[in-house]
Amino acid sequence: MLWARETDTIAAVATPIGDGGISVIRISGEEAFLIADRGFKGKTPLAAAPSHTAHYGSFADDLGKPIDNVVAVVFRSPHSYTGEDSVELSCHGGQFVTRRILETINGFGARAAQAGEFTKRAFLNGRIDLTQAEAVADLIHSRSERAHQTSLSQLNGALSAKLSELRDKLLSSIGLIELELDFAEDGYEFTEKSRVAEQLRAAISQVDELLSSYKVGKVYRDGVSVALAGAPNVGKSSLLNAFLREDRAIVTSVPGTTRDIIEESVSLGGLLFNLSDTAGLRESTDPIEQEGVRRAEERLMNCDILLLLLDGTRPLHPAEVVSSQKLILGVEARGAACLVAINKVDLSPPEGSIFTALADAFSKHQALQISAKTLEGFARLEEELVKLALGGSVATEESGIMITNARHHSALQRARESLVLARESTLSGKSGEFIALDLRASLDALGEILGAVTTEDILNSIFANFCIGK
Amino acid sequence: MLWARETDTIAAVATPIGDGGISVIRISGEEAFLIADRGFKGKTPLAAAPSHTAHYGSFADDLGKPIDNVVAVVFRSPHSYTGEDSVELSCHGGQFVTRRILETINGFGARAAQAGEFTKRAFLNGRIDLTQAEAVADLIHSRSERAHQTSLSQLNGALSAKLSELRDKLLSSIGLIELELDFAEDGYEFTEKSRVAEQLRAAISQVDELLSSYKVGKVYRDGVSVALAGAPNVGKSSLLNAFLREDRAIVTSVPGTTRDIIEESVSLGGLLFNLSDTAGLRESTDPIEQEGVRRAEERLMNCDILLLLLDGTRPLHPAEVVSSQKLILGVEARGAACLVAINKVDLSPPEGSIFTALADAFSKHQALQISAKTLEGFARLEEELVKLALGGSVATEESGIMITNARHHSALQRARESLVLARESTLSGKSGEFIALDLRASLDALGEILGAVTTEDILNSIFANFCIGK
Repeated sequence: MLWARETDTIAAVATPIGDGGISVIRISGEEAFLIADRGFKGKTPLAAAPSHTAHYGSFADDLGKPIDNVVAVVFRSPHSYTGEDSVELSCHGGQFVTRRILETINGFGARAAQAGEFTKRAFLNGRIDLTQAEAVADLIHSRSERAHQTSLSQLNGALSAKLSELRDKLLSSIGLIELELDFAEDGYEFTEKSRVAEQLRAAISQVDELLSSYKVGKVYRDGVSVALAGAPNVGKSSLLNAFLREDRAIVTSVPGTTRDIIEESVSLGGLLFNLSDTAGLRESTDPIEQEGVRRAEERLMNCDILLLLLDGTRPLHPAEVVSSQKLILGVEARGAACLVAINKVDLSPPEGSIFTALADAFSKHQALQISAKTLEGFARLEEELVKLALGGSVATEESGIMITNARHHSALQRARESLVLARESTLSGKSGEFIALDLRASLDALGEILGAVTTEDILNSIFANFCIGK
Repeated sequence: MLWARETDTIAAVATPIGDGGISVIRISGEEAFLIADRGFKGKTPLAAAPSHTAHYGSFADDLGKPIDNVVAVVFRSPHSYTGEDSVELSCHGGQFVTRRILETINGFGARAAQAGEFTKRAFLNGRIDLTQAEAVADLIHSRSERAHQTSLSQLNGALSAKLSELRDKLLSSIGLIELELDFAEDGYEFTEKSRVAEQLRAAISQVDELLSSYKVGKVYRDGVSVALAGAPNVGKSSLLNAFLREDRAIVTSVPGTTRDIIEESVSLGGLLFNLSDTAGLRESTDPIEQEGVRRAEERLMNCDILLLLLDGTRPLHPAEVVSSQKLILGVEARGAACLVAINKVDLSPPEGSIFTALADAFSKHQALQISAKTLEGFARLEEELVKLALGGSVATEESGIMITNARHHSALQRARESLVLARESTLSGKSGEFIALDLRASLDALGEILGAVTTEDILNSIFANFCIGK
């Protein structure tokens, strides 16, 4: 560890804020039992209680005035979340009572915990590595099945194991090289070059595999933003409602950031899709409508997928075809995907001339025939959205180990650069000292991900994203 | 017990909804361990674990797919909140994860708990009586020191003990009367009449004491609504801000129910004051302003205290004096209290003629001289508000046993009526049978409060006010 361990006692409400049946206040640190016992009156003092036992009692303030009846669960170091002595107090979940208890505990000598400080201590005390700590926040914020599964797998050490394995292999390569260096002065030949080169090739390929998982991993973790575009009255709101109407694992409503854009989140294929219904795209001289169009365009410029909705019962004006194609080209130029859906198939038979004309004009982008009213074609639409979100691949049940985090991705890129340099040096017969230097750099980059090598600044920026009490 | 005990297993999230470090899912009922063990994988099955022990493990769905790492705390019947076998699962506090675990537990055979159902079971299983069950909800919803202290005292059985003592005394009176009835046929004289009459007098006086505590008890529990009235620009908003500016135990902002009325809650003297800043009272022809005035008047008609604010730097138009006096009379006619404060004492010296004129005109209602800007006179203003809220009495540190609940108040009134009838019958020499009948009726009324005598309807209406998970 590079940092001084902090052992002062911290406390925070670990449950969400609000009225509920129970609130939990977490206390952790050297004086956790001493501090808790100043307020807790039960059959036995908590300091004398065995680890992993629950105790009913009352909790009183510094004047001995009771605040609430509580259940205190005792966790003794190192068998606690933080690795320190810890107490979790369950009290009645009212905001007033919860706050009074926390204030009392702070008055008894506990410091108010910072965001993520319990998890930070778990990391500093070697209970978990940094990828696992990051997974805690991801798990709490997960809003889809995929986000949940990848964060849980990372929490349980799948990524750590993969990275540790890679580090072990690189250490063995370094061992071979250093063996040669030791004997170099004796004129000893470096005969293991090809073996080291092969090891490095395998390592690069493993890093590449992880790096390539990032695009999908990011989608798993953060979801996909879909901008819904189309002329007014083409059925955008009906389409949104149709997505929300079905019985899904998770459907949440997010208030729009502007009055003009309606946002909804929906889970398709285990992925979170954040759909925005942007204002119509037609030209207008009304300043309010113009502002709506401007915001819609901004949203369109930042989406992962553009879903362009057309009305199958109304022929497109040639100018509309041109502007739609321009929109698609613009979005694709940014690397985002496009999907065209022709709505109201229930009103206009697919063989109808308008439908055929639209389908022909947008055939490169599927031109799916759907009805937001009868849900015809919806399964196919959802399937295509999931496919586009995953960059053409199909979501698998078991997703394997994935990179979901920009910090990990950037460190892996640096590890790869050093590995490539090391391999080139090996192949071109450079001195083992050069090779070992690059290998050490790549080991450091991998160590950064796990938190074996990192700085207080990096730690602070990671744990600042946590909630208080975790 | 009058009701069939329900022993099926119920489950609910007991912590507030939202993202936090920890969520707690509570499971209670005959199959609590069986159901929890279907998902929980730890060192030992929970069914084999001793009561009051905590167990770390993973929790998986019906296909064995892990959902989260959890800590399960085991409470064995009867030593649990409900009196039944119970498990409390602490999981990572994300909404998605929490919901997935609850859904899985429901799939394993637990029924989703209704609002207050855990506490209802605690009552039905004889762990607590009805006044204690009601105190749980009051404690959770308490937002001031007084509300907190009275609900905690009730939760810990202070009211129950008082009522039980009263019931025991009445039972002993009934004993005396029935003794007489047994010997009546033998011509035995009822010699204990004066003793019974004295017992009943004492009982009535105790009930009266409880009844008279209700007015203050209600204020302790529910707080006080204060309508802030005054012409525009008299400084109503500044006054509200001044109340909120000071460092207080509890200050919460409640969004107004209408756009025209700003509401804020503030704790003074341990009491919750709900202040509403109503729209100005001046006449207007603007329809929107008229609507604002109408709503302000409605609020004024429903307040506990009217706080009329005047501007000490501006003479009142005689018509304004009349309309203000009319307002005060109207509010007082409803039984609400009035307090007049003259603002801007920092700008206008109190000896100034305007100030003196206003103070004279409103001298019956204190006419306190204050400054919302410098806070001059504020301590006095707050003191007067607390005094008015408590009906002239001063809030004491130890408040004794209080009635805070309308249901208790109405049952006590019925108990009193029957006691008065019984006493009259005793004094007028009526037959012991009459007296015993009335005494039984008053015992039943007291039993209703404790829940010894009640109906399913009463129970349902009580527990419907609870949150889910309690």
